[in-house]
Amino acid sequence: MIISYEIMKETAKKAFLNLGLNEEQAEICAEVHTSSSADGVESHGMNRIPRFAEYLKKGWIDPNGKPELIHKKGAVENYDGHMGIGITNAIFASDRAIELAKEHGIGCVSIKNTTHWMRGGTYAWRMAKKGYMGISWINTESCMPLWGSDEQGVGNNPFCIAIPREDEPFVVDVAMSQYAYGKLGVYRLEGKKLPYPGGFDKEGNLTCDPGAIEESRRILPIGYWKGSGMALALDLAATLMSNGKSGSDMDEEWLGSCGGCSQIFIAYDPDIFGERDEIMEKLDRRVIAARNKHPIHPSRPVSCPGDQTRVRRASNMQAGIHVDDSIWRQILELASN
Amino acid sequence: MIISYEIMKETAKKAFLNLGLNEEQAEICAEVHTSSSADGVESHGMNRIPRFAEYLKKGWIDPNGKPELIHKKGAVENYDGHMGIGITNAIFASDRAIELAKEHGIGCVSIKNTTHWMRGGTYAWRMAKKGYMGISWINTESCMPLWGSDEQGVGNNPFCIAIPREDEPFVVDVAMSQYAYGKLGVYRLEGKKLPYPGGFDKEGNLTCDPGAIEESRRILPIGYWKGSGMALALDLAATLMSNGKSGSDMDEEWLGSCGGCSQIFIAYDPDIFGERDEIMEKLDRRVIAARNKHPIHPSRPVSCPGDQTRVRRASNMQAGIHVDDSIWRQILELASN
Repeated sequence: MIISYEIMKETAKKAFLNLGLNEEQAEICAEVHTSSSADGVESHGMNRIPRFAEYLKKGWIDPNGKPELIHKKGAVENYDGHMGIGITNAIFASDRAIELAKEHGIGCVSIKNTTHWMRGGTYAWRMAKKGYMGISWINTESCMPLWGSDEQGVGNNPFCIAIPREDEPFVVDVAMSQYAYGKLGVYRLEGKKLPYPGGFDKEGNLTCDPGAIEESRRILPIGYWKGSGMALALDLAATLMSNGKSGSDMDEEWLGSCGGCSQIFIAYDPDIFGERDEIMEKLDRRVIAARNKHPIHPSRPVSCPGDQTRVRRASNMQAGIHVDDSIWRQILELASN
Repeated sequence: MIISYEIMKETAKKAFLNLGLNEEQAEICAEVHTSSSADGVESHGMNRIPRFAEYLKKGWIDPNGKPELIHKKGAVENYDGHMGIGITNAIFASDRAIELAKEHGIGCVSIKNTTHWMRGGTYAWRMAKKGYMGISWINTESCMPLWGSDEQGVGNNPFCIAIPREDEPFVVDVAMSQYAYGKLGVYRLEGKKLPYPGGFDKEGNLTCDPGAIEESRRILPIGYWKGSGMALALDLAATLMSNGKSGSDMDEEWLGSCGGCSQIFIAYDPDIFGERDEIMEKLDRRVIAARNKHPIHPSRPVSCPGDQTRVRRASNMQAGIHVDDSIWRQILELASN
């Protein structure tokens, strides 16, 4: 089904209001979920709204939970998210990181006991849109085997970094698994093989068969042992910086996906040394050099992270945004209560 | 050839003194290179000393170049490395980051116009040994094709993160390429295939044949498009934060591997909130949970990054450290001038 941005957002907002969110929360959540779908990240856009509703009903998300300042020192602030809405908690934390960066050059905000922030890149992107370099990451419950294990032992903890540029930010949003479970499902339903091995089958062989990986639950870390180590490091770092739950603590007390997680937001002010123009020129030169590299396929010049997203967004804003029929029916029902 | 730590370090130090380094520089460089070899990272240990000598002679490294403070704001300092010795510049910068973290909770030091720091993990590890969480990365000249290109277009820019723990730090040191060129050479000389595809051959097929990748120069980013995007993001971030050269600027003006590069060091103080004991307990619990995950091979329990390095180091400190015969002859010659 194809829906216009305006109608999609208004419907989502109505659903959020019916679920007990206040006007401001509903507006922000509708905007973030709809934008994710507009960018082609449906898994964290419309597709997540029914699950968000379920988590609210189960008490795994508390719409009244607000970030509470626990500690502060210099350029660092530490909050308790009180199991509030992941999106609004993360927006609050990333905006605070910017305020700290304005004052100290760099700003770091950690938040513990928060909930799923939906699309990870949202917050680093937001920081870069405001002119700051943004770095953020999160720990999740275990959904990926550590290297050398056949049992889920670590989250696919995404690492996001966004670089402000004169026009649009350069944004990387990288989960530590080669493919998300959502992606495996998309390939399976289309009857397609993965372009590259995405995990192990039950016999322990690397495979491009998405169904075999869904069955074994043995998704592959990016770079094999490297992504496994990085995922565990990001978990430990998030735990250390927030004094929050680690991924294994979250496994012990299940409160839904990312329920009780720890998140980190670092902002850096590129203007502190008064050399912004010179820096932006260097970044331009760097990006142009990348784009000019010889492409494998002459018709497909080298692209940068975010390029395809922007094309997709522009097209979807004009032609309307795809949403799964059954998901849309559920959202309409939530909106009509 | 097997050499004891003491003799290896003393010989390296003598070589460095003969090359014009002062007592302090020679001591530090000998310690870092020898420790890298002791840890099994020969590529950045003894093997690099002849090339370091060559760079000094060519004027690509200036032993008199010292870090000069260019800018300072709050928790951030920006230095010009004046093409000084990569190791001593990086040690200076990481120690400064710690000082800033003591004051502001987090500290960030960028250094531009510096040279090869040798083994990347050295500095984050050093920060963690001193009780601080350390993050560091660097941009290098292009040595890896960007995703979609068959021409070298980005560095394999390593990202290092070290978490302090009660006993030994947890350290991840991840280059954005699946294998280093040095590793490909090791496999080729041993007549072995790579355990996983490490790049493309000249025909554009993913391959485990190290020689075919050395020939095409098409090494593979970790996670395919993901590592490619991360590598470019780390380059842009290092350039932005240091106002230094980007990887493509370094390609334009060749001053040896990493000649004129930009480096970032971030330190975070886990004691700022007075909750160290509680945090360390959480980290322990997290690491134990990882180690207890079901192993694929019953005889090989899940290990954490750094585990194997520590075992190797302990063994090498006792039994002596391996060095290639021809490399050792070159170092002996440098030491005997």
